[in-house]
Parts: sequence; structure tokens; C-alpha cells
Amino acid sequence: MARTQGSHSAQTGPRIREAALRLFAKHGYAAVSMRQIARDVGVQAGALYNYTPDKQALLFDLLKGHMDELLAAWKAEPTPATPTLRLEAFVRFHIRFHLARPQAIFISYMELRNLDPDNFAIIEGLRKRYESTLTGILRDGLTEGSFAVPDPALATYALIAMLTGVNTWYRDKGRLSVDEVSDIYWDMTCRMVAR
Amino acid sequence: MARTQGSHSAQTGPRIREAALRLFAKHGYAAVSMRQIARDVGVQAGALYNYTPDKQALLFDLLKGHMDELLAAWKAEPTPATPTLRLEAFVRFHIRFHLARPQAIFISYMELRNLDPDNFAIIEGLRKRYESTLTGILRDGLTEGSFAVPDPALATYALIAMLTGVNTWYRDKGRLSVDEVSDIYWDMTCRMVAR
Repeated sequence: MARTQGSHSAQTGPRIREAALRLFAKHGYAAVSMRQIARDVGVQAGALYNYTPDKQALLFDLLKGHMDELLAAWKAEPTPATPTLRLEAFVRFHIRFHLARPQAIFISYMELRNLDPDNFAIIEGLRKRYESTLTGILRDGLTEGSFAVPDPALATYALIAMLTGVNTWYRDKGRLSVDEVSDIYWDMTCRMVAR
Repeated sequence: MARTQGSHSAQTGPRIREAALRLFAKHGYAAVSMRQIARDVGVQAGALYNYTPDKQALLFDLLKGHMDELLAAWKAEPTPATPTLRLEAFVRFHIRFHLARPQAIFISYMELRNLDPDNFAIIEGLRKRYESTLTGILRDGLTEGSFAVPDPALATYALIAMLTGVNTWYRDKGRLSVDEVSDIYWDMTCRMVAR
């Protein structure tokens, strides 16, 4: 609060996003005010509007930023030669990426209802793009004859729900490491789709 | 609003629960006031307190009511003779029960964070009781030799996340009926656990 307005201005944007993410995840988007976010960051409420036009823009930025990061991170992964190896890479990547960002995942699912229709359509488009990478792997495996999947679209929904579900129960320092969890989920995935 | 306070009092309790469920699902627990719920039901805010001590009690009632109903409905299902048939019954039951109650499922997942610790512990206990029915079926199939499941606890989490996930994408009058979706999810489940 003692900080002079405008100091560290290059850091203020990220700090606003970080505070908004934490407060939305804890209390829910609808219950958090711009004033509360400003107080948390230590700036005047008015200064917040130098960085974002309103609370809706802040929510959209967080959700879009998350989806952009997810798509970029997957694109940066190596592409193994076979559909089976690509599916294994996807399973391990999805679990690792999501476990590292519990708050972003939480609000990405919880706060979709609070996006304006245009913003919702953009986030849905990005989500479908991510899902389609998995559907593509499943179709490749079907074509190649290594997978038997009755309905690739439903298998995509089923696998993504199952993998994202790890976030609801996984605890650091529990009985299994992230790698051990990934091994078991890969085993289950493999059985589900194998010919 | 024109309704005299106290009329239809036997119906007021259920109507308050129904309004709270709808408003919590739409706006989130933290953003909904007791006054808003009273207005929706058409009673004075003060009259609400004849039915519930506070908003927390209302949320807890909704979540506990949902879990009690889930456990009672599963108990009322017939118990087939083999673990494979029991697993099939569970898959079909879970999808059918959850698709019929989208708002209750939504707030049961979203609003856990807003339960007081004692209330949270009770809901968690009921949830674990439900999960343990599935773990029990998986263990029976392992003992009998019809299933091969590396980790029954993780398979329980994976299957429940996958089955509950149907709620996030299923639309009435989409390309598949509930029965067709259940057939495909049972096929995927079967492959995942079969020896």
C-alpha cells in the first residue's frame, strides 16, 4: 500500500492477473470486486483500469492466457513417431501441465458460466482445438489399426475428463509421485483404446 | 410476491431449496444473498429464517441432500450376480443419475470450497462412501479374476471423473441418446478394467 502508484509498473500487470486468479479461485468471480483486487495488489482501484477495462476482461485474459499456454506447451512437445507413443505423450503432458496449475484449471472450469457470450465462444474454440489434437491421435491409431475406439469424440471427452480429474484428488507428498500417477493413467488409457 | 406470507407453508421449504439451487448454480454461492433467494421465492427475507438458520445451512442441505439421494438411489438398484454386471450397472446408473440433475452436480463440485470445515468433512465422507462402492466392485472383480486393475483407488477416481464428465458435454437432442452414450462408456470402462 505504501508503494507509490506507477512504480514497478512493468510488474503490475502480471501481479494484477496473479491476484485476480487467486481471488477468483478462492471466492468465485461474482463475489470478487475490482476494489478487492486493487487492495490485494496494493494499488488504487482507479489504477487497475490502466491495465484492464473491467473485471470481465480480466477473467477472459486469465482463461485465454491459460488456453494459449496449454496449446503452446503441447505444440512445443516432441512428436513421437507412432499414435501409441503420441497418446502416451499426451497423457503424461496433460497430467503434468494441469497438476502444475491447480488454480488456473479450477477457474477455467468453474467460471466459464461467467464469460460474456463472445468471450465464451473464443475460449470454447481454443478448448475444442486442444481436444481435437487428442481426437486426431485417436483417429491416427484407428487408421493405422493399433487402436479400437468405438467413438473417437466420446473417447476424447472421456480421456480428458479422466486425466483432468487427477487435479481433484492428487496431493503433493501423497502415496504416489506425479510420474507414478502418470504411469497408472497411461496403463488405463492404453487398455481403453488398445485393439 | 402477492402471496400472503405463510400460505402454502408446507411447500415453502422445497421452494427455497429449489430457488437456492438455481441461484447458486447460476451466480455462485458467494454472490447470492438470502434476500435474493427470498425475493425469488416470493417471501420476506425474515421468513426465510423460519426454514434455514443461514446461507451456509442452505448450501450444506443441498449438497447433503444430493449425496443422500445418490446413495439411496444406488442402494435401491438391483445387485447383479457378477462383478462385471455390477460394474455395468454402476456405469449406467451413474450417468443416468447425474445427467438428470445437472445443477445439483454442478454446485456439488463447484461449491465444496464454500462449505465450513465440519460440513465439508460430512460431504467428503458421503462422497467417499459412494466411491467405495465402485472400489468394492473393482476389488471383487480382481479377486474373482475377471478384472485386471493396477490400482483400484485410482481406477475409481478415473472412472468417476470420466462418467461425471458426461454432464459437461451431453445435450438433449444431440446425436446420441443417454442409452447410446451409456453403451459407449460401458464399452470403454469394460476395456479399461478387463483382464
